[in-house]
Amino acid sequence: MVPETLKWDPSGESLLLLDQRTLPSVVRYVTCCNYHQVAECIENLTVRGAPAIGIAAAYGLVLASSEGIDLVRKAAVRLASTRPTAVNLFWAITRMTNLAERIKETAGMKKMLLEEANAILNEDINSNISIGKNGQGLLPPSCRVLSHCNAGSLATGGYGTALGVIRAARESGKQLTVFLDETRPVFQGSRLSAWEMAMDGFDVTVICDSMAASLMKTRGLDAVIVGADRIARNGDFANKIGTYGLAVIAKEHGVPFYVAAPSSSIDSSVISGEDISIEERSSEEVRVLPGGIRIPDEIKVWNPAFDVTPALLVSAYITDRGVFRYPFFFDDH
Amino acid sequence: MVPETLKWDPSGESLLLLDQRTLPSVVRYVTCCNYHQVAECIENLTVRGAPAIGIAAAYGLVLASSEGIDLVRKAAVRLASTRPTAVNLFWAITRMTNLAERIKETAGMKKMLLEEANAILNEDINSNISIGKNGQGLLPPSCRVLSHCNAGSLATGGYGTALGVIRAARESGKQLTVFLDETRPVFQGSRLSAWEMAMDGFDVTVICDSMAASLMKTRGLDAVIVGADRIARNGDFANKIGTYGLAVIAKEHGVPFYVAAPSSSIDSSVISGEDISIEERSSEEVRVLPGGIRIPDEIKVWNPAFDVTPALLVSAYITDRGVFRYPFFFDDH
Repeated sequence: MVPETLKWDPSGESLLLLDQRTLPSVVRYVTCCNYHQVAECIENLTVRGAPAIGIAAAYGLVLASSEGIDLVRKAAVRLASTRPTAVNLFWAITRMTNLAERIKETAGMKKMLLEEANAILNEDINSNISIGKNGQGLLPPSCRVLSHCNAGSLATGGYGTALGVIRAARESGKQLTVFLDETRPVFQGSRLSAWEMAMDGFDVTVICDSMAASLMKTRGLDAVIVGADRIARNGDFANKIGTYGLAVIAKEHGVPFYVAAPSSSIDSSVISGEDISIEERSSEEVRVLPGGIRIPDEIKVWNPAFDVTPALLVSAYITDRGVFRYPFFFDDH
Repeated sequence: MVPETLKWDPSGESLLLLDQRTLPSVVRYVTCCNYHQVAECIENLTVRGAPAIGIAAAYGLVLASSEGIDLVRKAAVRLASTRPTAVNLFWAITRMTNLAERIKETAGMKKMLLEEANAILNEDINSNISIGKNGQGLLPPSCRVLSHCNAGSLATGGYGTALGVIRAARESGKQLTVFLDETRPVFQGSRLSAWEMAMDGFDVTVICDSMAASLMKTRGLDAVIVGADRIARNGDFANKIGTYGLAVIAKEHGVPFYVAAPSSSIDSSVISGEDISIEERSSEEVRVLPGGIRIPDEIKVWNPAFDVTPALLVSAYITDRGVFRYPFFFDDH
């Protein structure tokens, strides 16, 4: 069993986050007793993945709510400042603060916000199971599938979006061979996706991101499935850096390219991908290499954490509401 | 000045190889006193780059030649077994052993083989200068250029092939902005190319391999220039893993894709790229991550060191003999 990405500790009144920075070599939880700690854990990638950071932020607001609406408002601003690209974060914060504003009174607020955060978590897991059911039919009975980054159990409340479709395909009796881009610079593919899929008994092979084209050309591939951090109304979407290039390469080789995501990843206020804010992260993620080697500071580094893939490259979206094909018109969720 | 990739030490009768495994953090030379040591240094990437390993093997045969033709023959077999893909290795070994077979006598053989190895080294540098002169005209006066892996001074006798074209463009007064794929899994782009270009005063930015598509789409790029490990008669070529995907992405964005290589990289005995042997290296290159993290053995890794790019994706070959465009018919050199 893949460990839970996050869990509420009722006795300690705290949020426990599986530390995704040290996986798979060290498996440990980080305890967050206040919203500041949750915000830091989102920023430093202790918890990552569009749905998971939304859920973590929801619990962060629960932690703030014991002191009433003013601190909830302050916490919402802080939590919303952590990462700009995944819309699930803002979606979850809005849903929680809307509730808090309706409650207003401090008495009972924490209990009700905790119920709402639990609901967001449970809805996410159920949404992923629906995504799996809706999407598994797209994969052939014997399927070589590639994913990028981690859109799995660890990126969500559980089960996963892209990796959830792969899980559902196996549950329906299909034979899966799973390839995973290691996903530089943070290695979410080799550290997280490979680990959780191997733990579930899948046949897993890691490749470097630059090997995907050669894999398709020389070994063959039946499908690419990735997650999404934000989906624009027209079907353009932001996801982990490298997704766009992978979509171009899949098209060149005639390999179907699927995007699996919950409705909470859709941002109908964004008309096209050009309007999605792309986070650029510290160059240290790229500079620090194995063996104690470091790329010196006089060499510049460009480190966008996400890229935008145009809708035309998406063979189909797999969501909890069904499977959608081009042209896309995503309304509010 | 970029340190010499390899140099003959006349006093010590040994070959000094710049240790490319620890650059740029540690700059040191490894001393090779016999051909076994040279072979190991080629295998373990102390010296790498198609032209450079050919030159190193030539000096390895010099080291063997003091004991006569039998040891030269044995050394040739050993050195040829080190790496399968780059043809320059076999080209240099054949050239050296052909000379040794003509000499036959032990007396004087080492002196003549040393002269031949020196000639191979000097011809390589001159060839790179010709490549630069022939290719620089392809770049616009103000040019944003991307390279992959290291086809620079460190991969050759000096000056470089792909990076030599960039050097020649600057020498002719052009403004260059240089982007370098870090080139997983061995980081030849961020460790070697970025280091040697920064040392020469270029404006250098490192990106992860998966960022090239986003760079082209969002920031613009005028050209991609890469080296080659083996060029087939029809213009297909093998180069560092990731080159093929990069060529596909360049085509999608209308970015010219140039291959710079000396005549010694052409293998006219190979009809097309399908017949080029692709080295697969140890999974450890992919498993060992920064921060002491390791991808466990139950997860498989596919680690091809090279891929093959079809001739149709090559905008032009830049060689010491001139610039060639599709269709290509490369005869023996």
